[in-house]
Amino acid sequence: MSKLKNFFSPRSIAIIGASPDTKKLVRGRVMKALINSGYKGKIYPINPSHSEISGYKSYASLDELNESPDLTLIAVTAEKVPDILGELSEHNCHNAVIYSSGFAESGQANKSLDDSLKIAIKKHKITVLGPNSVGFFNASDNVAATFSPGIYVENSPRVNDGPGRRLVIISQSGGLGFSIYQRASNRGIKVGLVVSTGNEVGITSLDVLEHAIEDEMVGCVVLYIEQFRDPQRLENIAKKALQKGIPIIVVKSGRSDASKRAAISHTASLVGNDSAYEAIFKAFGIFRAYDQDDMLDMAAVFTGSKVTCGCKVGIVSISGGGAIWLADACSDAGLKVPEFKTKLQNDLKDFVPPYGGTSNPVDITAQSLHSDGNIRALELITKDSDVDMVAVVATLSEESILKKEKKRLKKLSETCKKPIVFCSYTLPKEENLSDLGDCDIPAFTSFVGCARALRTMHLYNRYQLLNLHEKIDNISSPTLEGLTSTNTEFYLAETFQQLGISTPNAKLVLNIEEALIASNQIGYPVVLKVQDPDIVHKTSSGAIELEIDGETHLKNSFKKITSKLQNKKTPILVQSMAQPGVDIIVGVTKDSDFGLLLMVGMGGTNVEVIGDISFSPVPISKLAARELLLGISGLKPWVDESSNLELDIDELSEILVRVSHFAESNSNFIEEFEINPLRVYEPGKKLLALDGYLRIKSSK
Amino acid sequence: MSKLKNFFSPRSIAIIGASPDTKKLVRGRVMKALINSGYKGKIYPINPSHSEISGYKSYASLDELNESPDLTLIAVTAEKVPDILGELSEHNCHNAVIYSSGFAESGQANKSLDDSLKIAIKKHKITVLGPNSVGFFNASDNVAATFSPGIYVENSPRVNDGPGRRLVIISQSGGLGFSIYQRASNRGIKVGLVVSTGNEVGITSLDVLEHAIEDEMVGCVVLYIEQFRDPQRLENIAKKALQKGIPIIVVKSGRSDASKRAAISHTASLVGNDSAYEAIFKAFGIFRAYDQDDMLDMAAVFTGSKVTCGCKVGIVSISGGGAIWLADACSDAGLKVPEFKTKLQNDLKDFVPPYGGTSNPVDITAQSLHSDGNIRALELITKDSDVDMVAVVATLSEESILKKEKKRLKKLSETCKKPIVFCSYTLPKEENLSDLGDCDIPAFTSFVGCARALRTMHLYNRYQLLNLHEKIDNISSPTLEGLTSTNTEFYLAETFQQLGISTPNAKLVLNIEEALIASNQIGYPVVLKVQDPDIVHKTSSGAIELEIDGETHLKNSFKKITSKLQNKKTPILVQSMAQPGVDIIVGVTKDSDFGLLLMVGMGGTNVEVIGDISFSPVPISKLAARELLLGISGLKPWVDESSNLELDIDELSEILVRVSHFAESNSNFIEEFEINPLRVYEPGKKLLALDGYLRIKSSK
Repeated sequence: MSKLKNFFSPRSIAIIGASPDTKKLVRGRVMKALINSGYKGKIYPINPSHSEISGYKSYASLDELNESPDLTLIAVTAEKVPDILGELSEHNCHNAVIYSSGFAESGQANKSLDDSLKIAIKKHKITVLGPNSVGFFNASDNVAATFSPGIYVENSPRVNDGPGRRLVIISQSGGLGFSIYQRASNRGIKVGLVVSTGNEVGITSLDVLEHAIEDEMVGCVVLYIEQFRDPQRLENIAKKALQKGIPIIVVKSGRSDASKRAAISHTASLVGNDSAYEAIFKAFGIFRAYDQDDMLDMAAVFTGSKVTCGCKVGIVSISGGGAIWLADACSDAGLKVPEFKTKLQNDLKDFVPPYGGTSNPVDITAQSLHSDGNIRALELITKDSDVDMVAVVATLSEESILKKEKKRLKKLSETCKKPIVFCSYTLPKEENLSDLGDCDIPAFTSFVGCARALRTMHLYNRYQLLNLHEKIDNISSPTLEGLTSTNTEFYLAETFQQLGISTPNAKLVLNIEEALIASNQIGYPVVLKVQDPDIVHKTSSGAIELEIDGETHLKNSFKKITSKLQNKKTPILVQSMAQPGVDIIVGVTKDSDFGLLLMVGMGGTNVEVIGDISFSPVPISKLAARELLLGISGLKPWVDESSNLELDIDELSEILVRVSHFAESNSNFIEEFEINPLRVYEPGKKLLALDGYLRIKSSK
Repeated sequence: MSKLKNFFSPRSIAIIGASPDTKKLVRGRVMKALINSGYKGKIYPINPSHSEISGYKSYASLDELNESPDLTLIAVTAEKVPDILGELSEHNCHNAVIYSSGFAESGQANKSLDDSLKIAIKKHKITVLGPNSVGFFNASDNVAATFSPGIYVENSPRVNDGPGRRLVIISQSGGLGFSIYQRASNRGIKVGLVVSTGNEVGITSLDVLEHAIEDEMVGCVVLYIEQFRDPQRLENIAKKALQKGIPIIVVKSGRSDASKRAAISHTASLVGNDSAYEAIFKAFGIFRAYDQDDMLDMAAVFTGSKVTCGCKVGIVSISGGGAIWLADACSDAGLKVPEFKTKLQNDLKDFVPPYGGTSNPVDITAQSLHSDGNIRALELITKDSDVDMVAVVATLSEESILKKEKKRLKKLSETCKKPIVFCSYTLPKEENLSDLGDCDIPAFTSFVGCARALRTMHLYNRYQLLNLHEKIDNISSPTLEGLTSTNTEFYLAETFQQLGISTPNAKLVLNIEEALIASNQIGYPVVLKVQDPDIVHKTSSGAIELEIDGETHLKNSFKKITSKLQNKKTPILVQSMAQPGVDIIVGVTKDSDFGLLLMVGMGGTNVEVIGDISFSPVPISKLAARELLLGISGLKPWVDESSNLELDIDELSEILVRVSHFAESNSNFIEEFEINPLRVYEPGKKLLALDGYLRIKSSK
């Protein structure tokens, strides 16, 4: 059982400073929300100024209560909070929600108070949600421990029963968390738990996530985060969630300068590098959303009764235009809308009028609106082997539109193994959403949103495959023995060799005489490269001379390149000029949250401008390495099946695997590692590392 | 005055076969909708079976009526329609809505009926909306001539007054058109006119569009189309709309095979090439939407009181998380959220609590929810010269949240020159939307949607600039004299020259002896190319040999290339091998709807795989040519300011202009024209056409 079970499903709750005043006081609103939610445990208001609040006996203090409530709700001013934690401990209360704000999120001024809070939490062993939290709402067990207007203003917040899995909402912003709850409920998604984690001095988003995926009733978890406080835990939790088949959908903000500025003052977050988060999400099988609608479209799919790994959609519509629109959206999302076979089309023609359509999308026409055309079509189509899922384009604004077919629809939804969803082009009536909810069928109001969400089932299956079934071999990696703190390509030749990467013939020289001899031995054309660890970008520093085809050319180039040197003893590399190929950048970079990440993308001198780079945590499996490469748009001409070019993607994938293990096994020492370009050729021709750079922590 | 003014704002309406039965009969529903909408003109039910319908005297026939109504509504079975048109003409009625279906959209079976209808329309000179139309709703003049459930089920459909411009909705699908109306009304966008054009045998979407932009109250037009019936008219109408500052937003469906199949049976459309539509929309300054939400987000901006061409957003929020989310969305959309200057921040600090934020986004915190923090912040920020527009992140689900500030907000909205919008993270209450409507302030419920819509103002300004202020010079173009029906690069050398495009030194040869002489004259390295008009893709056909660096190599290559020739007399081109550069494809292609289009993109042998190609109508201005090039993602490394590479984009733009004029002046003859590759170098070095192909209509 999750260690937070008691926290989110307490049998008794004390409210410190509870008040009957719901107008202004948080502690009044919390009390009201708790009562309205139909909480079944004991409620203990603690307030010496009242003998009774809202029909509940009020206690002067915890002393008077003479019992240890499972959970305490604290909404007093910030200064008083540390002392209250001491009192809690004395009375053996170890769970508390702190609504109070005025800690780290208020900046330096309140730093000492924030420190006192942290010390008190540790000393008194209190599990704390907050501070600066809006609280939580456990809709499965009727616990509304929150002052969110989204809950307390309703007389009875929606409590969930009926079939289907639940959505868990975790948010570092309380306002957003409960707005997601409101939107989810409004569209008929059943919510199990909403948690506003606030400053996360105690319970973090990942704690709640870990708790959520223990619950068998949970179908999906959505998170709004500005930063994970304990990012190193994400991998294990994400893997567990993939194993249990509970998709995680995250909105991670803080991509822009403006939002980074704001995040510091909001929940005291220092927003990390977005590319790292992006890479981690992809690698760990976490969906990223950019909007509330987007997020809930995916959540609707994953809280529905079924998922599929297929991508063939059957579309049934009462509107020809709606059918066409959804077919386009599905196609844009990478799904297939296959033409139905003659047999199925003939069966459909029994009740679809001639001005409708039966080829897929099926246009049963508005005439079928009040007949049983829709459910008949659904019963036929769900049986077809060409169909993995069925989307119904409907107008859910019509009164009681589903009443007649509901019984058959519910039966079909229960018996058929394929996902069925509805997409309404009109704004739906609650009654109809509720009917669909009873049938455990998700509803959408956006063609694009519906199609994209359907597509995620396919993607999720891929995520599970990559993370759960793909073995990562244990590979021995080169050590960093013999390397200085900063190394250029010549000094890395052995490391490259150990990584299975070839390098062009090369010799280190110090003067033109040596350069002439070396070039003759290597054979023209050659290139010259300054081997100075401080010069990372050779082209822009004039530290490289290309296509040198003879002695005269060599002399000129050597003069040119050495004229720019500060230190005349800096060695120069004479390297055989490699044949043209496709230039890739492969490397390892360090992120403040997630440590070393593998980096791969289109290489060359304009790598920053092109910006076609992907990242991945290390180590990586070969299949995942291939996926990473396929995500690089510049490689499209070579990996596309209709292309007449070939590239050794297989060997490149192997190299990524080896570099990722190299990073993993030397993670305490590597600061930065880059091969740019790694020149790639057609299969059978060896890849070449032309330039390289490795920086090692000096404390090695 | 628009010639359709009388049609959409009639003073009297006859309903052929009107019925009191609203349960099943379209003509009963139309009657009810008309009455409910508060129509102020005369209503004449025509039905011999009733003496009175819903309180209106019913006439046995048009004869009995003894008056010519401005508009007639026809909902009888398809077969009767052509005869009724004859009767209308006899009674001098020349406007009719035909709701009946069973014409072209039902396929071949009903072709003769469809023909009869067309003949009757022409013979009797009737302006017809439909057939297969759901009718129209003129919300400005209270005319609900429709059986759409979106209108007739309401007791009184929303009629628009108050400030602000109106939205016009034109749809080839009636169901979708009225669902857009429902959604627009629901979010507080004021709708002027909704028209379902159906099969468009008479009035087309473009007719209604032309009518709409004549109306000064119209702020924006949205269209759902499967195909324009009269695409050649689009350019002029679009230009007029740009002149009047009325943006057009189109959802054009039929991008996938499935939707193309469905469109034929839906409104009898043959869906054209999507890339052509995409190009035309961009060139004519028409926005494309992919979803109803997307469409209405843009419409909300353009029916608001103000637009700006700037891109600097000030954000005010009561939710820290909401502020951050919108800041990210704005940044993703290419907008700027600049940090405020100290002076403004200090002014804000007067009322923003210390745990809020003043840097932009401004987090006034939930504490300000019931104070005047929001409006004070708005009053300050709208005055700041660093801000072009202001977005307020709010929770519009709170009851009467705007009541207190409404007066000041309305005044601010009236006096300030910058757009102000609200974005609610919770689902809004109608009351609040209506308050914002009174202030003429658009409301959004999606962060991403809001940001994208704000961005379109900037884009619209660019559209106007390109279309209205950019002169297209008259350029004399090469003629097609002397060219045969299909021409390869050698025969096009003169055409290229006239277009100002250089070609490598080249000679035509028939045997190896001539090839050796030619190569010596040209100088190695050379390339060999078969000049066969039937070989379009030389590489895949083995009709090209590259990098020939000497006589032996030439002999081998010549043997290789000629061994594949069917006809041993096919001439071979010996061409100087061009230096490496960036390969572009430039050409002219023919679209069934829009005629010749200029084509430009990343070139080379994998042009189809890369798919990085844009189109434009011809001729094109130089500024538009530059825009087109900047839209090609493969050119990014060369046009990006931080790049250290240079490319002669200026000369390439000039060439696009000249090719576009060439296409325009020979539009009756050119079937297909392609330069691939056109090799582009740094400025100062001549661009080279390496390969080319021109096909001319044989009837020239």
